[in-house]
Amino acid sequence: MEKRIDAPEVQQPLPFQSVAASAEDKECETDAAKNGKAVGFVLVHAGAGYHSESKAKEYKHACKRACQKAIEKLKAGALAVDAVTAALVELEDSPFTNAGMGSNLNLSGEIECDASIMEGKSLHFGAVGALGGIKNPVLVANRLLSESQKGKLSAGRIPPCFLVGRGAYQWALDHGIPPCPSDKMATKFSLSAYKRNKRKMELAEKVETEFIQTKRRRQSSENENDSGSLDTVGAIVIDHEGNVAAAVSSGGLAMKHPGRIGQAAHYGCGCWAENSGNVNPYSTAVSTSGCGEHLVRTMLARECSIALQSEDAHHALLETMQNKFISSPFLASEDCVLGGVIVLRCCRCTLESSQDIQAFLVEFLWSHTTESMCVGYMSAQDGKAKTHISRLPPGAVAGQSLAIEGGVCRLGSPIN
Amino acid sequence: MEKRIDAPEVQQPLPFQSVAASAEDKECETDAAKNGKAVGFVLVHAGAGYHSESKAKEYKHACKRACQKAIEKLKAGALAVDAVTAALVELEDSPFTNAGMGSNLNLSGEIECDASIMEGKSLHFGAVGALGGIKNPVLVANRLLSESQKGKLSAGRIPPCFLVGRGAYQWALDHGIPPCPSDKMATKFSLSAYKRNKRKMELAEKVETEFIQTKRRRQSSENENDSGSLDTVGAIVIDHEGNVAAAVSSGGLAMKHPGRIGQAAHYGCGCWAENSGNVNPYSTAVSTSGCGEHLVRTMLARECSIALQSEDAHHALLETMQNKFISSPFLASEDCVLGGVIVLRCCRCTLESSQDIQAFLVEFLWSHTTESMCVGYMSAQDGKAKTHISRLPPGAVAGQSLAIEGGVCRLGSPIN
Repeated sequence: MEKRIDAPEVQQPLPFQSVAASAEDKECETDAAKNGKAVGFVLVHAGAGYHSESKAKEYKHACKRACQKAIEKLKAGALAVDAVTAALVELEDSPFTNAGMGSNLNLSGEIECDASIMEGKSLHFGAVGALGGIKNPVLVANRLLSESQKGKLSAGRIPPCFLVGRGAYQWALDHGIPPCPSDKMATKFSLSAYKRNKRKMELAEKVETEFIQTKRRRQSSENENDSGSLDTVGAIVIDHEGNVAAAVSSGGLAMKHPGRIGQAAHYGCGCWAENSGNVNPYSTAVSTSGCGEHLVRTMLARECSIALQSEDAHHALLETMQNKFISSPFLASEDCVLGGVIVLRCCRCTLESSQDIQAFLVEFLWSHTTESMCVGYMSAQDGKAKTHISRLPPGAVAGQSLAIEGGVCRLGSPIN
Repeated sequence: MEKRIDAPEVQQPLPFQSVAASAEDKECETDAAKNGKAVGFVLVHAGAGYHSESKAKEYKHACKRACQKAIEKLKAGALAVDAVTAALVELEDSPFTNAGMGSNLNLSGEIECDASIMEGKSLHFGAVGALGGIKNPVLVANRLLSESQKGKLSAGRIPPCFLVGRGAYQWALDHGIPPCPSDKMATKFSLSAYKRNKRKMELAEKVETEFIQTKRRRQSSENENDSGSLDTVGAIVIDHEGNVAAAVSSGGLAMKHPGRIGQAAHYGCGCWAENSGNVNPYSTAVSTSGCGEHLVRTMLARECSIALQSEDAHHALLETMQNKFISSPFLASEDCVLGGVIVLRCCRCTLESSQDIQAFLVEFLWSHTTESMCVGYMSAQDGKAKTHISRLPPGAVAGQSLAIEGGVCRLGSPIN
C-alpha cells in the first residue's frame, strides 16, 4: 500500500489559494496494498482562534499525539468512530486546548463542556452539552451514539442522542464513565484567564452607565474578546472499510453563561460524517471550531458536507466559507464572523494496474477566518504525523477574510 | 381587506391528497384592504401523536384560544415573533398539551421542557432545553432571541442563543421571568401517566433476563410507546409587514432520561422561519412535532422550509415527508417514523385592481405520519379560529404513511 500526502510545510498560506498537491506513485501503492495492511487517515484540529508562536510547540504536539492515537486504533482494526474518539480524548487531555482538561471557565467559574460525534456509516449521532465533572466528554457522546444503535429501550422508549447538564452527568456514571472532580479539570492557565476576564468584565460594567453600556453593546468590537479562547478541538477519520466519522469537543466561550450550548453539541453544526451512498458519490467528514453562535446559525458542518459533493472540493469549500459563512444572510448583523473547519472527502477507485486492489482517494482541506488554526494529519502508513499552524496572511482581517489549504492522499487496500 | 381561507371541514383526509382550495374574491379583498386594518395569519398545532375523540374538544379549544391570542397581538400591531409567542403561551398553559403546564414527566418524575423560536426577518433564534421551574419556556426562548439582537455583551462577549438546565433557569430569573414550583406544573393527568409508565417499565425490566432484554431492545415495537405522549405544540405566524415567525414547545417524550434534549430545542429541527430575500421568492415558516430523535436527525423543519421554495408547495411538502422523513437515509434503521409539521409560505403580490394595495398570498399545510394531528388557524379578519383533528385514513399504518392537508389565504394591506 502506498499513501501520498502533500501538504504545505508551514509556509504562509495565501487566502483563496489552495496548496493541495496530487502527486501519485502507483507502483508503491500497489505493492504496499498487497501486504494487506489496514489503512486509514486522520485529520485533527486544535482549534480556530489565535495560536501564539510561544505555544506553537504544545499545540502541534497535542495534534501529533491525537493523530498517533487514531492511527494506532485504525491499525488495530478499529472503525472510524472509535479512532476519531481516541484522537479527541488525546486533544481533550491536553491542558493547552479548550476542551476537557483546561477548558474555559464559565461566568460562575465552572467548567461545562460540549461534545458530539457522528458516524458516516449508520448516520447516528451522539452529543452532550453543558456537561461538568467528566474528563472526556467525547466518551459520553460516543457511548450515546453506540447505545442508540442498539435500538429501543425497555417499554419501547427511544434512546436519547443528546443529553445535557446533570442528566448527562448521571447517564455517564450509569454507563461506567468515571467522574472527575471539577477542580482537577481546571488548570493554572484556565484559572488565571478566568480571573483576568472577570476583572475586565467587572471593570467594563462598573465604569459605564447603563445607557452607555447599551450603546456600547452594539458597537463593541470582536477584538475585545479573547480570540485565543476559541480553540475547540476536533477530528475526522476514514477507516480501512472507507467509513468516515467526525467529532468535536469544546469548553465553550470564555465567561459564557452557565448552561450555554455551543456548536460542538449541535447536530449539523459541530461535526458531520456521511458515507457515500446512492445519492452522494463521496464520503464526507467535517469538524468545526470558532464562535459557536456563528457556527450554529450557519450550520456550517452540514453545509460543508453538502458542498463537498460537487466536482471541485477546494472550490466548494472556498465558496461555502465565503457565501455560507462570512457573507451568510444568517449572520448579516455580524461584522466579524469567526470560525474554521477541517474537511475530508473520499471516493473509491480500483487501480488499473491491479484489479484486486481497491483504493480510496482522500482529499482533505482546512479553512478558517480566525487569525490561525492548528491542524495535524497522518495516514496509517506514516511514521509520524504532520502538523501545521495555518495563519491568515499579513494584512488580512480576521472575521472577514479566510485561509484555505489542504492535500490529497491515496490509500489502497485489497478487496475482500 | 379580505381574507379567504378554504380548508377541509373535519373530513377524513386521504393520504397523498391535498384538499387545498384557492378560491379568490378580489372585490372584497380590495375593499377590506382599503380600510387599512392590520392583517396577519396564524396556524397552530397541539401536536402530532394520538388525539382521542373523548378529548377532541379540549385539544381544539386550546388551539382556538392560541389562534385568538396571536390574532389579538397582530391586531394590536405586534410583529410575528411576539404573536407566535402569545400563541405558544396559551398552548403551554393548557393542561391537555405536552408543553409547559402538564408536560410529560421524565424518568425521575421531573418536568424538563424544550422550546425554541425563530424570526424570519432577522433570522435570529432562541432556544431553551431541559428547563424546569418555568411555566412558559417559550418566553425564555423569546427573550434569548431579543437579547441576542441587541448585540454583544460587556467585554465583547457574544450573547447565547441556546441555554439549558439550571443555567437557563437562572438566566430566566435574571431577566424577570418568574419561577413556577415544579409541583404546580404537573397535573393529575401527567402524574397518573407517569405512575402508569413507571409500572410498565419496571415490569418489563423485572420479567426479562438481561439477555432477553437486550434482544428485545432490537425487536420492540413502536406501539409499546404511548404515542399519545408525543403532542408537542407549535405555531407559525405572518404579520402585517409580511414577516414570518415560528415557535415550538415540548415537555419531551414520556419517561425520557433527565437532560434529554428533543427537537423542540434543536436549531433547524423544531421550527424554522425565513423571510423572502434575494435568493428565496417565498417567506416560509415551519413548526414540527413528534418523536424528537427522528425530527432532529432529519432536520425536518429546515428541510421543509428549503423544499417550500419550489413551485408547488403541496407537492414539495409531500415529497419531503416521504423522501426526507419516512424514507430518510438518516432513519434507515427505523421501521416507524413518527412526526408531523405545520408549514406556511407566502409571497407578495400587488393587486391588479388597485396599485396601492399589496397582498400576501399565504399557502398553509399540515402533514403527519402519526395517528392524528390537531391544528387550528385564523386570520386577522376571522371572527373565530377554525380547528381540525387530522387523522390517517382507516387502514393506514402510523409511522409508514402520511396525511397531508391545507388551504390558501389571501391577505391585503395598503402599501405604506
